[in-house]
Amino acid sequence: MFHARRYKHCPSCGGPVEYRVPADDNRERATCLNCGSIHYENPINVVGTLPVWGEGEATQVLLCKRAIEPRYGLWTLPAGFLELGETAAQGAQRETDEEAGARIELGPLYCLLNVVQVGQIHLFYSARLLSTEFNPGPETLEARLFHEHELPWDQLAFRTVRRTLQHFFEDRRLGRPPALHSGDIG
Amino acid sequence: MFHARRYKHCPSCGGPVEYRVPADDNRERATCLNCGSIHYENPINVVGTLPVWGEGEATQVLLCKRAIEPRYGLWTLPAGFLELGETAAQGAQRETDEEAGARIELGPLYCLLNVVQVGQIHLFYSARLLSTEFNPGPETLEARLFHEHELPWDQLAFRTVRRTLQHFFEDRRLGRPPALHSGDIG
Repeated sequence: MFHARRYKHCPSCGGPVEYRVPADDNRERATCLNCGSIHYENPINVVGTLPVWGEGEATQVLLCKRAIEPRYGLWTLPAGFLELGETAAQGAQRETDEEAGARIELGPLYCLLNVVQVGQIHLFYSARLLSTEFNPGPETLEARLFHEHELPWDQLAFRTVRRTLQHFFEDRRLGRPPALHSGDIG
Repeated sequence: MFHARRYKHCPSCGGPVEYRVPADDNRERATCLNCGSIHYENPINVVGTLPVWGEGEATQVLLCKRAIEPRYGLWTLPAGFLELGETAAQGAQRETDEEAGARIELGPLYCLLNVVQVGQIHLFYSARLLSTEFNPGPETLEARLFHEHELPWDQLAFRTVRRTLQHFFEDRRLGRPPALHSGDIG
């Protein structure tokens, strides 16, 4: 099973840490041998949007070409780690602004995808673009719209982006109303 | 804005930590003054279920009376922190087993509630009980079914539990099909 084991020292007192199963627990936790405090590690959330422009056959989606590692030069939906102090929807909107400089109207949660191997949950929200002018930030080489037939399927940065795009164009083909897709990756 | 600031020492090298805005960032992060590593803090996920027994007027929901702090003695839906190595759905199922010893068939995600003040997202899944025999674990004093008119509204442990129960009985009253409710608490 995936376990980060990233603690070597106690973030409270700096003492040495060992991974042990606490008395009232059933999993190994980072336990300080000096002050006894226990430090938990949990999955984190990546939040983003699926920004759409146009309708029917003219439908286009916004992708960003990454200017940073990992996956430099590959295409992604705007997304990033959820921060303390914001809701998932606010984080998704912030990432869309930071990475694409795109103006959107945020819609409902569209995909919740577990990526257990890396301890992440990816949440993508539906979004309607309010303009086709983008102003990509330093993490993005280029932000542009793609029709379905133009999508760079072999140059997508993340499998959750692929899955989200697949759901979107399948839902559209089948005339399904947008509803939450939940799933697991890998 | 909420910020945990729980690092005093670096979990990698044990060196002293200061909260600083890294060069390519716009938020203060725990930065090690010794080895330079940066440690991020992010919201964590609480996962649980809304276990239902019966239909129509006979509908009942399962609540657990907490045997631990916080909120000792108050009633909650079975829920707890999502662990590394599991999907949100698996975590919800595990918590239902650990806290209530209830056998369920897990349904779709029903509520996603941001609790920004404490840096949490609470995810509750729909669930059908497969039996009315419960076997509560050490974190639970009692697990029992409640009809709507019996619900202990003034003795609920968490606002996300209250909100989830409100949505459920309102949806049922209005004959709405179960669909995701997203919202923010506090």
